[in-house]
Amino acid sequence: MTMTHVVYDITGCPGLDQLSGDELIDAMRQTAHRLGCTPRTSLIDPFEPFGHTCVLVLSESHITVSTWPESGLAHVDVFTCRAQVEPGEAIGPLLRLLGGQIANTRQVPRLPPDNALHAAQAGEAIR
Amino acid sequence: MTMTHVVYDITGCPGLDQLSGDELIDAMRQTAHRLGCTPRTSLIDPFEPFGHTCVLVLSESHITVSTWPESGLAHVDVFTCRAQVEPGEAIGPLLRLLGGQIANTRQVPRLPPDNALHAAQAGEAIR
Repeated sequence: MTMTHVVYDITGCPGLDQLSGDELIDAMRQTAHRLGCTPRTSLIDPFEPFGHTCVLVLSESHITVSTWPESGLAHVDVFTCRAQVEPGEAIGPLLRLLGGQIANTRQVPRLPPDNALHAAQAGEAIR
Repeated sequence: MTMTHVVYDITGCPGLDQLSGDELIDAMRQTAHRLGCTPRTSLIDPFEPFGHTCVLVLSESHITVSTWPESGLAHVDVFTCRAQVEPGEAIGPLLRLLGGQIANTRQVPRLPPDNALHAAQAGEAIR
């Protein structure tokens, strides 16, 4: 098993103050579907006067989106142990909804569960 | 404003199958308190036969914890625009609850909201 954790900072998003949490979660579900992941529970936390933090828990880990409408910014995290397409392709529905451009993306190395027991026994860290 | 996003993969956690979601959220709240952050909503998703994904939404972003009891592994993410102590110090209550060691930690550069408008106008990405 490999863990895929990719983060995206998306700028120039024009209408974040008009987006609903349900629209965000729907795009996150489409992203999960493209990845081949199974959505479980979701959380929508609407901020005042606008902006959201949305979480979609997957059987394979989770997707989070936080929007900052006054800055036209969205922070997107895709964290999963299954990615049948590139995460950058999978977030297409989110990018279309947000309407911005990726200003920053990082791949974050994470320890997969099936390596964790060995790593703990050997006192190893991933590099 | 600076954004702090630090991830921790914690191995050798002996009793993750015995932990409750409420215990995890409580330790995440203590971590938020140490950081000087304000907890908002929380989500606990218990997996079968064991394991949890827990999310604590902060006014300043969020903390997530996913446990993999069969592997003694926990994935911890601390993502905040306020950190009055080092995140590695702030997660002390979580580390004590989980009972493992940090096998992997990464600082993830993220674009802060007050830089996002400028970055979008200039077509810049953070390095």
